[in-house]
Order: sequence, then structure tokens, then C-alpha cells
Amino acid sequence: MTLAPTQKAPLDVPVALRPLYERNFQEMTRGTGRLMLMAADQKVEHLNDDFFGTGISEDDADPEHLFRIASRARIGVLATQLGLIARYGADYPGIRYVVKLNSKTHLVPTRLSDPESRQWLTFEQLDRFRSASSLPILGVGYTIYPGSRAEPEMLREAARLVFEAHQRGLVAILWAYPRGEAVADERDPHLIAGAAGLAACLGADFVKVNEPKAKDGRNAAALREAVLAAGRTRLICAGGKETSVPEFLARLHAQIHEAGAAGNATGRNIHQRPLAEAVAFCNALAAITLEGATVEEAMAAYRKELSLSSPPVGRSPAS
Amino acid sequence: MTLAPTQKAPLDVPVALRPLYERNFQEMTRGTGRLMLMAADQKVEHLNDDFFGTGISEDDADPEHLFRIASRARIGVLATQLGLIARYGADYPGIRYVVKLNSKTHLVPTRLSDPESRQWLTFEQLDRFRSASSLPILGVGYTIYPGSRAEPEMLREAARLVFEAHQRGLVAILWAYPRGEAVADERDPHLIAGAAGLAACLGADFVKVNEPKAKDGRNAAALREAVLAAGRTRLICAGGKETSVPEFLARLHAQIHEAGAAGNATGRNIHQRPLAEAVAFCNALAAITLEGATVEEAMAAYRKELSLSSPPVGRSPAS
Amino acid sequence: MTLAPTQKAPLDVPVALRPLYERNFQEMTRGTGRLMLMAADQKVEHLNDDFFGTGISEDDADPEHLFRIASRARIGVLATQLGLIARYGADYPGIRYVVKLNSKTHLVPTRLSDPESRQWLTFEQLDRFRSASSLPILGVGYTIYPGSRAEPEMLREAARLVFEAHQRGLVAILWAYPRGEAVADERDPHLIAGAAGLAACLGADFVKVNEPKAKDGRNAAALREAVLAAGRTRLICAGGKETSVPEFLARLHAQIHEAGAAGNATGRNIHQRPLAEAVAFCNALAAITLEGATVEEAMAAYRKELSLSSPPVGRSPAS
Amino acid sequence: MTLAPTQKAPLDVPVALRPLYERNFQEMTRGTGRLMLMAADQKVEHLNDDFFGTGISEDDADPEHLFRIASRARIGVLATQLGLIARYGADYPGIRYVVKLNSKTHLVPTRLSDPESRQWLTFEQLDRFRSASSLPILGVGYTIYPGSRAEPEMLREAARLVFEAHQRGLVAILWAYPRGEAVADERDPHLIAGAAGLAACLGADFVKVNEPKAKDGRNAAALREAVLAAGRTRLICAGGKETSVPEFLARLHAQIHEAGAAGNATGRNIHQRPLAEAVAFCNALAAITLEGATVEEAMAAYRKELSLSSPPVGRSPAS
Amino acid sequence: MTLAPTQKAPLDVPVALRPLYERNFQEMTRGTGRLMLMAADQKVEHLNDDFFGTGISEDDADPEHLFRIASRARIGVLATQLGLIARYGADYPGIRYVVKLNSKTHLVPTRLSDPESRQWLTFEQLDRFRSASSLPILGVGYTIYPGSRAEPEMLREAARLVFEAHQRGLVAILWAYPRGEAVADERDPHLIAGAAGLAACLGADFVKVNEPKAKDGRNAAALREAVLAAGRTRLICAGGKETSVPEFLARLHAQIHEAGAAGNATGRNIHQRPLAEAVAFCNALAAITLEGATVEEAMAAYRKELSLSSPPVGRSPAS
Repeated sequence: MTLAPTQKAPLDVPVALRPLYERNFQEMTRGTGRLMLMAADQKVEHLNDDFFGTGISEDDADPEHLFRIASRARIGVLATQLGLIARYGADYPGIRYVVKLNSKTHLVPTRLSDPESRQWLTFEQLDRFRSASSLPILGVGYTIYPGSRAEPEMLREAARLVFEAHQRGLVAILWAYPRGEAVADERDPHLIAGAAGLAACLGADFVKVNEPKAKDGRNAAALREAVLAAGRTRLICAGGKETSVPEFLARLHAQIHEAGAAGNATGRNIHQRPLAEAVAFCNALAAITLEGATVEEAMAAYRKELSLSSPPVGRSPAS
Repeated sequence: MTLAPTQKAPLDVPVALRPLYERNFQEMTRGTGRLMLMAADQKVEHLNDDFFGTGISEDDADPEHLFRIASRARIGVLATQLGLIARYGADYPGIRYVVKLNSKTHLVPTRLSDPESRQWLTFEQLDRFRSASSLPILGVGYTIYPGSRAEPEMLREAARLVFEAHQRGLVAILWAYPRGEAVADERDPHLIAGAAGLAACLGADFVKVNEPKAKDGRNAAALREAVLAAGRTRLICAGGKETSVPEFLARLHAQIHEAGAAGNATGRNIHQRPLAEAVAFCNALAAITLEGATVEEAMAAYRKELSLSSPPVGRSPAS
Repeated sequence: MTLAPTQKAPLDVPVALRPLYERNFQEMTRGTGRLMLMAADQKVEHLNDDFFGTGISEDDADPEHLFRIASRARIGVLATQLGLIARYGADYPGIRYVVKLNSKTHLVPTRLSDPESRQWLTFEQLDRFRSASSLPILGVGYTIYPGSRAEPEMLREAARLVFEAHQRGLVAILWAYPRGEAVADERDPHLIAGAAGLAACLGADFVKVNEPKAKDGRNAAALREAVLAAGRTRLICAGGKETSVPEFLARLHAQIHEAGAAGNATGRNIHQRPLAEAVAFCNALAAITLEGATVEEAMAAYRKELSLSSPPVGRSPAS
Repeated sequence: MTLAPTQKAPLDVPVALRPLYERNFQEMTRGTGRLMLMAADQKVEHLNDDFFGTGISEDDADPEHLFRIASRARIGVLATQLGLIARYGADYPGIRYVVKLNSKTHLVPTRLSDPESRQWLTFEQLDRFRSASSLPILGVGYTIYPGSRAEPEMLREAARLVFEAHQRGLVAILWAYPRGEAVADERDPHLIAGAAGLAACLGADFVKVNEPKAKDGRNAAALREAVLAAGRTRLICAGGKETSVPEFLARLHAQIHEAGAAGNATGRNIHQRPLAEAVAFCNALAAITLEGATVEEAMAAYRKELSLSSPPVGRSPAS
Repeated sequence: MTLAPTQKAPLDVPVALRPLYERNFQEMTRGTGRLMLMAADQKVEHLNDDFFGTGISEDDADPEHLFRIASRARIGVLATQLGLIARYGADYPGIRYVVKLNSKTHLVPTRLSDPESRQWLTFEQLDRFRSASSLPILGVGYTIYPGSRAEPEMLREAARLVFEAHQRGLVAILWAYPRGEAVADERDPHLIAGAAGLAACLGADFVKVNEPKAKDGRNAAALREAVLAAGRTRLICAGGKETSVPEFLARLHAQIHEAGAAGNATGRNIHQRPLAEAVAFCNALAAITLEGATVEEAMAAYRKELSLSSPPVGRSPAS
């Protein structure tokens, strides 16, 4: 499955900014057309659940851990809230950033209320930040919940956000998660394909979906419907809960090569590891996503990097 | 039943833009006063249900299918979301577009909440897009749900949308679907006539309604009330679920010649077919709508075009 | 009961525009201080119920019927939505218009939700329309529902609407209908008087209320409380459902001469008749409202006009 | 209990406008630091209940009655809605006005919905009115309902209203009534003290509360907690339902001299009387509030004034 | 546990304002990096409950008590609503202020509705106040309720508030209290850590949380998770209900030295005491927070100061 290394600018990118858009796209995908997105919005989305507890490295308790990983690993972009970027960015100017513009906690269950998450900062505020910070901010992210009673307002906000991102030559990424009292099965392949097509209609450059759960267990094959439905909007899959490294890599490889996904969006599977291990894991994901490695090649590189960096595997030294 | 080939500009079109409005109207109706609207907002409205599954051509899995059809068939306009137009428009500059400015998914059933759909982009944003894209955008579309608890906000939004469209010389089309807990029978002829009259009061140039279901089965006759209620606002009917081609054409012919409808708005009946078949079907609709053909003439042309383009009928080659 | 022929401009009319306000008031009341308002907002408020069906002239199926009547009869103003005015106004430049700025359908019953109706167009939009259309727009109208849970937002909107109308020298008319789960009896005289006083506090020039239902059957006498409560805000009564012509005229005469009402607001009683009959009926209302006629004088004129225009009484010829 | 005759301008009054603020304060309190506020917002708050019916003077049926009283009696200010001020103000330029910027009807009971009342006009609109009307508008009023589910929006609106009033050198008065499903006892002294302190935090110059109901019957003593809680924000008490004149005066005297209240806000107790009696009653209130009279002195003056103006006591002649 | 005495300006502080931000930070923390925040927003949050009643000094009935304490004690900042600052600030120009920009009463229980508190004044209004008042306003405060159904709107408002504070060189402090029907245990250490991390993502400079309740009773140790989760956002603990002075000081000492907290936020424990005692208590807190004192040293100083100022301990003389 081949992807053009550059996404042609959609027509809502002003002519003068099309070179910037394409440069942002290329930097974000490291010239491959595929995206290795380090998702780091969980301190809001999951509060401290992903960062502290059994099986989680102590490194992860400190938010700076996210920046330490992102600055050392071969990722495409780090996606997180502006508050963290503003606080740590000066020390990590080499990271490429996507500003996640909305987030909510997981406290209110669907049983009590359908999910709703609103845009935190305006683009006018983002503009001020971009010019003052001089950080490489390549794009913005936003989560939609199709099927929520809050859908009307969120689709409006998402459409405007994509448009305004494009007006500035920025890449727009939508997280699309069907959810709400009306949604019986969030992992239904057909529903996820619908969410991917919806993101395309909203103008997204990338859409991040959860991996569907196929009745026959062939999830990657089931993901193909969504990749098709998204059309020229490139689809990436969320990493999900922790699994073993080889399983994780095999799943990613199948998503890309069987379904035609354009990369991965991985969060806790990365940052719950000690620093050196997290970096090595990222690089393994990058090998598959950006460099066309097989699962075996990626595993070999991962083992090698790990053995070099931290014999024996344990808590990484503070950076 | 005769229609003036040009809709005189309503008075909320500024004097200087009346020629533009009338040109937009004429291009949209191909100089006939009747509209062949290819409705392609279903990737949001119905998610992937209309695009993937049993009885649907594999061509339809790819959003570009919509543009391939619209660029080859004799349609008036393609109505879809701006995200798709921005993404594919550069490759399909010959299509005439209507930007559908609101859309919702069908996930939340009326049982859980009355329908609500909000305007995605502002007119100020649309202006920027129109000038930067140089695509032929002739009008805008918006769906209202009379009878929904969200009606007050949606009527306000619709009235402003029509007004602002006219202020720019654009044609305004309202999709008017009575729906909500309060609506017992969405297909009641009298209720649909009410919705058509409401659209006229909102200033719409065209109103798209569902075909009513008459107690005596004479739906086209029952539609006459709605055509009258709409007055100078021209009425078109949604295509509905798939039926056989001859039945579909006969229904359209009756809507135009018995009820006085000013065209058709057809979606899944077109795009669920393979490309060549979809184009031929579109042209058959156009023959009735725009060229005064009889059902028999349209069927003959359809069969001829199909036999030429794809012997035997099957999946069309990728364009 | 005597009324000053001119309403002195309230102080929220800027000094420079007070002559315009007073001219608008005089034209609207034809120099009498009393208002003959042809209410034509029912295509939204009642959908097609008032325009099609048993006992309704076929003329009424076409929205233009409203303009045909208004252009031929001695009315003060025609009150309807801007969409219709924009569509038909160029052909009926001699009608004096009041733009009804909010409207809702009757689909959602109070049992499901309290009534809510929001302002469709902004005054900035209305300004653009007034200057581009050059139609004689003398005022604006807005409906409030005291007792609805939506009351807080609607009172705010009404107050601002009256203020902004006055800022432009326009006359402001409020339709005031107590309604909602909290309202046990919408026709209670004391409650209607309260609504009239509320409209005065909102700054309305005219308030249109439903005729109260008095326990002793003396409705006009019961209306007196409302006329007093409105103070310098002039009160007019809605026409209500169809009754016989003599009864209708007698009721209007009593409202004006017993209660002190400043005119009438009549809709379906006018437009459900064939054109000639509708014009004659309007003129009979005008005779009582504007010319001080007795019921007998008005009936005589009505009968004479009818006999001249359409022997025998039937469907009027298309205009 | 002594009060400074002038309220020092709070720091949100711009330096250049502090003299205006202090002049407004002094005029409003007639140089005493105490406020005699004639509350006349009831035509909205209570509809016609306070103006028509058994035991209410016929004079009160006409809204102008409020202006007739206010122009003849020794009050500090008349507080009412802008609509009435705009309509009658030109004939009563000598009255000092407070514009009550929000109001609601009493139709929706707390059982159906918590109370909510929103700001009718913006300050930008008020500015236009002030400059065009040249009436002496000294301040603005706004009601808050602590304990209502609508509290968040109303506190925000109140805070901004006080701030914007001060920005213009106007005096800000908050009506603070704890109410809603969450409020068990609206007259609890401790709760009323809380409401008074809340008004202070919102920046109010005066706070109007209902007189608390003390368990031991010593209401004025119980009010002391609220006066203290309000700090430099001066507290006045609502007049409440009608009681005998001596009782009313005695209660007011106790509020001022036992509790430290800074005046009174009286409505229906004034305007439900015939004009002459209403004026005399106002003057009796003023004697206690503004002139330091004892209850006996005020009663003597009241009886004398009444006997002079209208022997025998009855309906006052129309002004 | 060491803290840098200056918080480096985050990147959303414009370059030109970074010196101002750092000066504000240093003044607020008195050059120590730790914050002694006198919390005085309770007149809204708890109405008069914290200010009047058994066990509360009579001094506390008067709002000025807060300013008397703050002007005499070694605090960092006084945090309260703008209304009070505007009213008393001219007499207390030496106090450093944090404007608490939202507040709600405690009247509506979670059982009736999830908590919601909205921003009272805009930053544009705050700017006008800052320039007109010339008071030393060093920062702003805002409360969020993660887990409330009102969370989406409040997170948006909080993110914008932090951003706009930084745009002006002001320090931003978030009060973060998980609360709502969805929140089973507001004092759960893991949940409080989540709230602290959330505040970091929102960009807060300081986050104020309630002290967690550890199952093993070691609350300060349990607080460590939250301090880590907050990263470079400094965490302070609310004081909570009154305890004995030595216990209170020991708890604060543990929060700072065991958990790594960056100070304290104390309200009713301070102001419910008579003036002299409140000042001495503040100074004891400051000794621990700002001067590195042990609990014993702070107690000794407290006892000495008390014995000097008011033998015997009792109601302090009015200032």
C-alpha cells in the first residue's frame, strides 16, 4: 500500500500558505506520508490513571517524561494541550507539536451524560502563541463524539477548527470516537468507518479512530472499510491498552499493510515505560510506520536499542 | 406545468448582485428553472450505511466516487459538505457546487433526543473559501427539522443563512423534514405542505421535502398541496430508498408533471451504483427533469448509455 | 373613546428620527391612531392548517393571496416574515409592511415543551434589507410567551428588539400570549392584562393580545383591564377563529368602543376567503377601525362591495 | 446609627467619573446617604396583580400613576423598566431614575423551574438612551436569585453589570433574593445575610433584601447580621405586602435604627393607594428615611398631608 | 524539598512581559517560590456561614476584617472577588491581590445539580480595572470542578483565563475540586492527583487542591502523587476546617516537606479569629511556608506575638 509522501493542500488553505501546509505535512510525516503521532493528551482524558500505579514506570509520574521521550525518539509529532507545551516547550524546542485543542476528563460516565468536549483556545489565541513561542507547531487536534447529544455543537466546532487550521497552513487531525447513550458498540467496524467518513466531510487531514473489533477477529481487515471511507483523509489508529511489544508491532504492521492505515497514534503504551524503553519502543513504531520495517526488523532493533541503553531494563536515570 | 427559466432575485439580494444571483440560478437549473440536485451529504447524515454493504457498488466506498459521477453526468449541482469540496474540488473544477452548511449523523434516535443540526461554517469563512478556491459555488444548503425541540434555534439559523446567501448572490436551498417526538407522521401530505410553506417564509429559493405518503397511494397528487404552499419557492423531492429505475423515473415524472415539482434531489439511488451506471442513471433523471423527456424516452436513453459504457453491467473501472 | 392620531415618539427614538417614527406611526394607522393589522405569519405559526382544507378558499393555498389582498384592501399594515416580503415585495410595493421577526410552528405542544420563538434576523440584516428593497417597512413584530420556561431569553430579546426598532424610527409591535405548563388559562382577563402591562414595560408601541374570555361572557368589558394596564401602549386584539361576519364586526366594535382597544389584528378570518370577499371583509374591518363606522354601516358596505365584485359569491378570479 | 452622606466611589469607577458617581449617589440619597427607592418593576414581576383588584385604588390601573406619584413625592429614585421610562419620561423629567435592567414574571413557579431573569438591554444601548433622553438616570438595578440553578449565569451578569455601571459613574443596586428548589426558607436571617454579603462581593452600592423572619419575631434585630455582612454596601429592605401605615413606618424605623439599614425600597404599599394618599405615604417614608423623623412625627405629618389634600379620603382626582 | 525561587515564564507570556510575570511571581511568593495565599472568596462560596456564628469572632462579621488582616500579616496575596477589592482597595493599597474571577454559592447541592461557576468579569474589564485602580494585582484565580456536567464549558473558560492572564504577565491560580454526581470520593488521593495534572495541562502556575484523605491516614504522603502530577505547576493545599493551631501548622509543614507542596491557601482558619490572633496565625503559616521554620519555631513565634498583641486573648479592638 503506497501513500503519496505529501498531502496536497486542500482548497481551504489559502494559495500563499500552501507551501507552508505542505512543509508542515512533510515534517509531520517525515517525508513519508505516514504519521507517527505520540498522543499525550491523557493527563486530561484519563487524569492520573495512565501515569501512576501498578505496572507504570515511576518516570511517568512527571509530565516532563512526555517531553523527554518526544525529544529523543523518532516520532512525527507530540500531541498535547497547550498548557504543557507552554510550560515545557522552551526546554524542548526540537519537538514538533500538535496542539490538542479540546479535552475532557473521563469522570462523567455515559450513563450520566453523553460525552462533550469543547475547544479550549481560540485560533486568535493560538496565533499569538505561535508567533510568541516560535515553537514548531505543525497542526491542531480535536476530538469528536458522533452519537453524543452534544454532537451538533461539536461538529460545528470541528468544522470551523479544521477550516481555521487550514487557513493558517496547519494540519488538522480529528480524533473520532462514536460514543453516547445511542451508541451500542463503539468498536463496530461499520460505525468506525462512518466516523472516518464523517471526519473526511469535516475536512480533516488525518483521522484517528479506535481499532475496530471484528467478529472474526481480523481487526486489521475490518479497518479497511474505514480507510476507504476516509478517502484522501488519512487514517491512523489509536494504540489502545498495553499489549506485549511484538503483538503491538504486529498489530500496527497489519493496520498499515492490510488495512492501508497511514500511521499510528500511541500514548500510554509509550509513556508508561521508563525513559530508555519508551524511546526504544517509539523507535520500533517509527521503524514500521516511517521506514517500512517488518515486525521482525523492528523487534530486533528494539531489543538492540534497549540492551545498549539500559542494562538491565529498569527505571531510566533522570534526564 | 411551466416554470420560468429564471428565478427573479428576491429583494434581499442586493441590486448589484442580482445578475450574479440570476446567473447562479440559471447555471444551477441549466436554464430550465428546474433543478437536478445530486445530494451527497449522506456520509454525515447516514455515516457509511449508504456507501458500503450488500447491494452497494464497491465504487461507492471511496468518497471520490461522488465527484467522479458529478463530473461526468448532466447534473445541476452537487450538494455536499465543504470538507469534501475542499479536498477533491481542485481535481473537479467543472462541477457546480452547493455547500451543505449543516449536517448531523443519524446515531441519536428521536426516542433519545429531538433532531438538531447546526451551521458548520460562517459565511465569512465561506467567503474566504469561495475567493480562494475559485470553484463554481452557486448556492448553500441547510436542513431544518420543524417539530423538533431545537426548532427555535434552527429556524433562526436558517433565516439568517438564506438572507446571507442572498446578500452574496447565492441560491439558498432548505431541506425541510418535520421530525421529533411531536411529529407522529413525517410523511403526512398536509404536514409536508406546511414545511414547504415554512421554507418559503424563511426565504428559500428551493425547498427539498420528502415525498408525502398519500392514503390513497397517489403521492404525486398529494405533493401538489406542498407545491402550492411553497409559492414562488420551488419544491424538489428527495429520492428516497432505492427502487427500480423505471419506478424511480415514473415517480419523478409524476412529481414534476402532476404535482408541479421543480426537479429532484437524489443521492444514494445514484451513488450506490457503479460509476457508469450511476452516470447513466443521473442522465436519465436529467432527461426528465431538464429536458422534458417522458419516462419511456428516459428509460430508452438509460439502457442505451448503459449498454455502450459497460458491457456487461458490473463494477466500473477506476477513473 | 378617543385616541390621539399620532403616537408621540418614546425617548428611545433618537431626536433626529422622531419625525420618521411619527410618520411611520401615522401611515400605519392611516392618521387615526388605530391600527388595522393584517396578520400573515400563520404559514409558520400554523403551517398549512390555515391555508388548505375544508372551508378554506382555494385562493389561500398560494402565498401570493396574502399580498393580493393586502394590496387591494384598506389595511394599515401587512405583518409577515421577511422571506415572503423579499420574494413578493417587488410586485407589491404599495403595501405597508411590518416584518415579523420571530415565529415558530405549532408542532411541539406545551405538553412536550414550553413555547419558544427566537428572533430570526438581526437589525443589522434588517437595515441592509430596508435600504436595498426600498419597500415601506414601517415596523417590526415579535411574539412573547410570558409563563414559558423560555421567558427569560425571550423578554431580553423583546426588550432589545423594541429598543433597536425605536433607534431606527420603526414602530414595535409585540404579540403577547401567556403560554406554557405554568399557565392554566390563557384567556384569563387578569392574565391578559398582565401580558399587556408587560409589553408596556418592554416599550412596545402596540401590543396584540388574545381576546379574554370573561366568566360573565362580556369579553369586551373584560378587555378593559388590559387596555388600562397597557397605558400609552396601544392594544389590539387577535381575530381568533372564524365566526360569522356580523359577529366578528360586532366583537371588534365592542373591543374598540367598550374596552378602548386601538384596532384589530386579523389573519385567517381574512385570507381564508376568496380574494374579493377577503378584500371586502378587510374593508369592513377598516370601516370600524379607521373610519368610526357602526356595525350596521360596516355590514352594509361589506354586502354592497361583495355584490359588486363577484356575483354570485364564489371563488374570485385569479389576479 | 450614622452613615456617611456620600458613598466614596469604588475603584472600578474611573478617576474622571468619580465626581459624577458621587453626585449621583448624593442626588439619589438626597445628601443623606440613605435611599428612598420607589420600586416600580412589579408590572413585570407580578403582572397586573399589584395594580388591579380588591383593595387597590383604581388610579393604579394606569401605569402613569407611578410617574404621577414619583413626580410629586419626596422620593430618592424611581426604579422601573426602560420601556416605561422611555414612554413617560418626557412628561416627567424631574424624576430621578434607576433603570431596572432585568425582570421576570411570577408565572413559572419554583416547583416547575428555578427562577431566572436576564439583563434586557446592554450598556451600549443604555448609553445611547441616556444621551438621547437627557433624563436624570442615576443608576441601574438587577435582581439575583442565589440558590437558583440559573445562579452561575446570573452572578456573571450581575458582576459585569455592576462593573459597567461603575465604569459610567452610575450607582448599582442589586435585588438579592435567595430562591429555588434548593432554598428551604427564603426569609432565614442567616441566608439573607449571606445574600447581602454576596452582593458586596459583586460590587453593589446598595443591596435590596427581603426583611428576614426571626424565630423570636425580632426581625429588625435579625436584619443586623445582613447589614454587617454587606459591609460598605448599603442595605435596604423591600417593603413587602401591605400592612397598616403605622406598622409599616415602625418597621422601617426599626430597620434603620436597630439594624442599620440605609433606607427602604417600597412598591405596592405606595402605588396601590390613590394618588394623594400615595404621595403622603411616600413622604412619611421619606421623613423617616431621609429626615430622621420618629414614627410619631412621620404619622402626624402623614395625617396632616392627607387631610389637606383630599377631604374625605377617596379616589384622587386625575392629574 | 527545594523550589526555584522564581517560576520561569511559560511561553504564552509574551517576551516583553516575561520580566513582569517573573516579578509578579516573586512578589507573590516573596522571593521564596512558595505561596502563602489568604483565601477570601468564602463570602460567595459559603455565604455568611464562615463569618457569623458560634466560635467565629465578631470581627469576622465585617468584610473589612479580611483587609485588616491582609494588610498587617506576612501573607503573599489576598485572593477575593473584584467587588470587594474595588470597595476596600483604596484603603489597603499595600496588599497584593489575586482577583478570584469565578465563584458560586453552596446553596444548590450536588444532589440537585452538578456544580458550575462561571467567569464573572472579562479580561478587558480587568484591564480597565488594573489601570484605573493602580493596585498591585499580581494574578487571577478560577475554580474548576472536574467531574461536573458543566466541566466542558469550565475547562474551556479556565484554559482561556490562564492564557489571557499570561498574555498580561499575570500569575494564574486554579482551584481544582473534583465534584459532581459522578464523583464518589472528592478526597481520593489519585483523583486529586488527576485534578492537579489537569490544572497543569490548562497551564496553571499554581493549583490549589483539597488535602487528600489517605486510607492509611498519611495524607501528606498521599499528596505526593499530586505534586508529581502537577509537574512544574506548583501545588498548594486548601486549609480546610478549623483544627488546633499546632495541628494546623504540623499539617502544613508535612505538606511542604513530605509532599513537596509549594505553600498554603488558608481562609476561614485565619479570618474566623479576632484580628490580632488572625494576624499572628497568618504569620505562623508564613514562618513555615516562606521562612523554613519548624512547627515548634512557628508555634513559639505565634505564642509570643499573641501575648504581646492582646493580653488576654479576646476580641481584638476595631482597627
